[in-house]
Amino acid sequence: MGIHYYFRSLNELERIIRCPGKFKFEEHSVAAHSWKVVQYAKTLADIEERNGVTINWKKLYEITSSHDYGEIFIGDIKTPVKHSSPELRKLIQQVEEGMVYHFIEEHIPDEFKAIFHNQLREGKDDSVEGLILEVADKMDQVYEAFAELQRGNTEKEFVKMYRDALVKIKNIKLHCVDYFLNHILPDMVNDEIVSTVDIRRITDEALGIDRSQSA
Amino acid sequence: MGIHYYFRSLNELERIIRCPGKFKFEEHSVAAHSWKVVQYAKTLADIEERNGVTINWKKLYEITSSHDYGEIFIGDIKTPVKHSSPELRKLIQQVEEGMVYHFIEEHIPDEFKAIFHNQLREGKDDSVEGLILEVADKMDQVYEAFAELQRGNTEKEFVKMYRDALVKIKNIKLHCVDYFLNHILPDMVNDEIVSTVDIRRITDEALGIDRSQSA
Amino acid sequence: MGIHYYFRSLNELERIIRCPGKFKFEEHSVAAHSWKVVQYAKTLADIEERNGVTINWKKLYEITSSHDYGEIFIGDIKTPVKHSSPELRKLIQQVEEGMVYHFIEEHIPDEFKAIFHNQLREGKDDSVEGLILEVADKMDQVYEAFAELQRGNTEKEFVKMYRDALVKIKNIKLHCVDYFLNHILPDMVNDEIVSTVDIRRITDEALGIDRSQSA
Amino acid sequence: MGIHYYFRSLNELERIIRCPGKFKFEEHSVAAHSWKVVQYAKTLADIEERNGVTINWKKLYEITSSHDYGEIFIGDIKTPVKHSSPELRKLIQQVEEGMVYHFIEEHIPDEFKAIFHNQLREGKDDSVEGLILEVADKMDQVYEAFAELQRGNTEKEFVKMYRDALVKIKNIKLHCVDYFLNHILPDMVNDEIVSTVDIRRITDEALGIDRSQSA
Amino acid sequence: MGIHYYFRSLNELERIIRCPGKFKFEEHSVAAHSWKVVQYAKTLADIEERNGVTINWKKLYEITSSHDYGEIFIGDIKTPVKHSSPELRKLIQQVEEGMVYHFIEEHIPDEFKAIFHNQLREGKDDSVEGLILEVADKMDQVYEAFAELQRGNTEKEFVKMYRDALVKIKNIKLHCVDYFLNHILPDMVNDEIVSTVDIRRITDEALGIDRSQSA
Amino acid sequence: MGIHYYFRSLNELERIIRCPGKFKFEEHSVAAHSWKVVQYAKTLADIEERNGVTINWKKLYEITSSHDYGEIFIGDIKTPVKHSSPELRKLIQQVEEGMVYHFIEEHIPDEFKAIFHNQLREGKDDSVEGLILEVADKMDQVYEAFAELQRGNTEKEFVKMYRDALVKIKNIKLHCVDYFLNHILPDMVNDEIVSTVDIRRITDEALGIDRSQSA
Repeated sequence: MGIHYYFRSLNELERIIRCPGKFKFEEHSVAAHSWKVVQYAKTLADIEERNGVTINWKKLYEITSSHDYGEIFIGDIKTPVKHSSPELRKLIQQVEEGMVYHFIEEHIPDEFKAIFHNQLREGKDDSVEGLILEVADKMDQVYEAFAELQRGNTEKEFVKMYRDALVKIKNIKLHCVDYFLNHILPDMVNDEIVSTVDIRRITDEALGIDRSQSA
Repeated sequence: MGIHYYFRSLNELERIIRCPGKFKFEEHSVAAHSWKVVQYAKTLADIEERNGVTINWKKLYEITSSHDYGEIFIGDIKTPVKHSSPELRKLIQQVEEGMVYHFIEEHIPDEFKAIFHNQLREGKDDSVEGLILEVADKMDQVYEAFAELQRGNTEKEFVKMYRDALVKIKNIKLHCVDYFLNHILPDMVNDEIVSTVDIRRITDEALGIDRSQSA
Repeated sequence: MGIHYYFRSLNELERIIRCPGKFKFEEHSVAAHSWKVVQYAKTLADIEERNGVTINWKKLYEITSSHDYGEIFIGDIKTPVKHSSPELRKLIQQVEEGMVYHFIEEHIPDEFKAIFHNQLREGKDDSVEGLILEVADKMDQVYEAFAELQRGNTEKEFVKMYRDALVKIKNIKLHCVDYFLNHILPDMVNDEIVSTVDIRRITDEALGIDRSQSA
Repeated sequence: MGIHYYFRSLNELERIIRCPGKFKFEEHSVAAHSWKVVQYAKTLADIEERNGVTINWKKLYEITSSHDYGEIFIGDIKTPVKHSSPELRKLIQQVEEGMVYHFIEEHIPDEFKAIFHNQLREGKDDSVEGLILEVADKMDQVYEAFAELQRGNTEKEFVKMYRDALVKIKNIKLHCVDYFLNHILPDMVNDEIVSTVDIRRITDEALGIDRSQSA
Repeated sequence: MGIHYYFRSLNELERIIRCPGKFKFEEHSVAAHSWKVVQYAKTLADIEERNGVTINWKKLYEITSSHDYGEIFIGDIKTPVKHSSPELRKLIQQVEEGMVYHFIEEHIPDEFKAIFHNQLREGKDDSVEGLILEVADKMDQVYEAFAELQRGNTEKEFVKMYRDALVKIKNIKLHCVDYFLNHILPDMVNDEIVSTVDIRRITDEALGIDRSQSA
Repeated sequence: MGIHYYFRSLNELERIIRCPGKFKFEEHSVAAHSWKVVQYAKTLADIEERNGVTINWKKLYEITSSHDYGEIFIGDIKTPVKHSSPELRKLIQQVEEGMVYHFIEEHIPDEFKAIFHNQLREGKDDSVEGLILEVADKMDQVYEAFAELQRGNTEKEFVKMYRDALVKIKNIKLHCVDYFLNHILPDMVNDEIVSTVDIRRITDEALGIDRSQSA
């Protein structure tokens, strides 16, 4: 028994790969995903603060950094499965929560049990921190799917992931969502437009060759 | 719609890695696992035939080669989750079967629907073919876990996987189980005993050095 | 001596990668390939049966699941080498068969020797099962090469592999070949046509933006 | 210009591998490392709070999640290089800070510049949050090196990393350091002692064989 | 102390990946890069010899094969960092040379010290061998970047790497540079032009289908 | 036609992995192997020169850097296959040489054909340079196999590779072989003896704990 067992278990999320089964040009671990969500959420919360919203930073820290911890027990069960029926979704959530509960009861010393039960609860509630977590989590799906599509991945799952995440974000009422839709997303999409590479032209420029005269 | 969608989907099982999250020296895809189960089952059935048992080879072919197809939809959900409650286990099985069912209805042409529904059903029934599949499936857990333990993997999960699979095999009443326990398993365990390598001794032998005199 | 040495050796085919040397977006092990051939062959045989042809399922099971076992000894020697001269081709086949023969003699117990010699023989004879194996083996080359070309791989080897496999299949007289050419291949090629992704359009649709008015 | 360029750049830290050049059984990206530091720091701060220390959670969030961002520009330059001379160490730090500074000036919109300059500064100062970050960062070196040593890695660099990180932690005066040394580290070291696996014994137990009688 | 420590250290360059952090379809180790530079340099020197230039083959052998040995100590520090200021560039070079110097003093036996100090010095001087090394080193950047661009990599770093390497080569006065620009580079660029693959056309050709009539 | 096709082909040797099929903790490409052989050969030739032997450095450069080029066509065909019969060995060598010959005739411009035919010939003749190449090539087998054994790899193939390479080296009459056997190999073997790590002792030392009193 001891916090060591919690710390050691974090390593497992470095080995669970998101979106298992689908072809992808670049793999992402749940650990790396979690870190990016932490980073997005920080900036999203900064935007809220600039708009006069009060942020509970301790709570935001807790729920974003631990938001996928339950995948240690449940793996990255595919979204379609989780959502195939309300009944199944609820039961899987119960199992995940049950396994986290038992892990805490078995491994965490008594004086820290309350803290861990609180931190490892489902964080996506209706508080501003819960909503920011939801936006940040979906933003990483947007970034992951976008990079695959941009590199020529033809798996339909990434089109769907990109579209569904955008729709989910769009419907959350936060100042940072407006900022994302008006400033961040346009830069991302524009990135793609300019990314085609004309190797011959670059070669000619580097060598100082002007072919326009030769025609 | 078409069988092409079934054939293309097989590729996903090359990308789903067994035992996600746990550290392992060697990864195994569900596709490679499925192939080894096909191979084990063939020899196990040969042993049954030599003991006078009649084998339905078409059925054995169908149920072994497709036995993990449902993981395309469900991923390699961790065994502890699947078994955390009888209720959950049953529901996950329902979902998996439901998704396989819908896949067939959506993608397989009418004239082949019955064949696919039959082939992709759960194969581990009480027939001799179903029992052979169960033994072959557990045998691969024995081989996978053994190789990890032999290379020094200290994850307790592999000790548990090795032990649980042996217990499961032991309790199945088949001629091939006797053969496995009496002939194959002892060779495997013996393999481990002799595997320690003394580099200095090998070096001395290769160079023709005899240190026994020098003491 | 014992069947354990055969079962353990199967693991080597998980580590031999097809088409060594060439750049590819996705690697395939000989084990995973073998499993897909088993799956294709099963459905191809179903198609033959539906057309009134009698299938020896035990034989089909044996020859498809083991058809590349000799690569454990010989590696995935490149096709151009194998075919560079009839003399070489024959000699390499002799060596492969010789090494399989010696493996069986050395490791397989006497009572199973006949079974293994029979199963690990070259399966691509003129029987319907042998022809189905040939079609299934080439079909996997078609699927592998197609996926590389579709993702933008410019290695000429994959164009050649795709084309040569199609030509080989086309010239085999089986009902399942007709089915492949008329139903499966068109779906595959059509897949490619519709796979281009327009990220801006998807983004606009997800956000409910209509740019057609703005021009 | 835009925050998009910051968010997109985070992906690079998923591809920078810690401790480049050395053989390791398991690789860790800077992104995954950063996430584990975030997690350790959260619990370390909880321990401080339980001992009556006040934590600035917003500051802790900012400095831990971003503490290795500069490696995007500088890579994981080897520690011996960084420390080979005070002159070099200082200059490399200047370059890293200069490149972060220019990144912010070039890509971050004016209204967020101050926030980013503040967040991406060197966080390891003498405040309690700065010290917690230092402890959490070294703790991950302890965990990484320990896992390599436990699996039999003989590279001396990991012995040194493990030892140096422990010495560094030991000399920091925080309640959480006492907790780490007295409760977490002993569990970790004890883990190692019990990890040897006796495959024969496990096999015998699983099969219900009692060899003690047979002697 | 002993040459063994030098030979063993070479293995580290198999694990240092060039261009860390950037997305790439294919990774290249410093060891593999070094080998290709050895190969290019050999042919470049052959071209010089054919033009009447005398080559010191022993020197060329020494400086090309060892030219990146210092990266064992320094890693593949990113080019922008190395060049961010003349002051930093000089200091990093001093550190690299200092660490190589100390390695030789510590590990190489006295009778070989002079040889190793001579071989592991910076080889890119103004001699013909030094210039050939510079051309060969840049040529590998051209090949690496070209292959990424050709496969659709949209990272701007590879456009810049390709262009900068070409400009650097162009400005070196050697017969082999003329040959590269007039014979090798055009073949490379032409490669790209013809690489687009029309899967439908290939399929039709393989099957002997002529669609031109059907319109 | 052009030297570009030769340079581009080198990339294939970065993707051919040595010793295919066998489990290994660390993979080595033929390209990285070739580079290490170049490095070993350089020092081995330095040792010969110090003993008064004249080295043809241009020849040594050519034969060592290109010595495995033929594997582009033939792959890393397993040694047991190559040696299974003198007839097969000779035929495979003929095929490899034939394919290299045709590559040169097809792709290398006329004025360089003679140079390439000379460089890509089998280099392991009885000249001092040919013998050095043989020693360097076997030395890399010693290093590769040693590292696997040291990390606990139990595949018998690496014991055999290590032993056979040592025997081969021992029987070559060169000054550098004496040096290898008397100075390099003892350091390597000694490395192994001292590599066991006692984590508890290191931990105690780092923390300044003295348990010797407590007993």
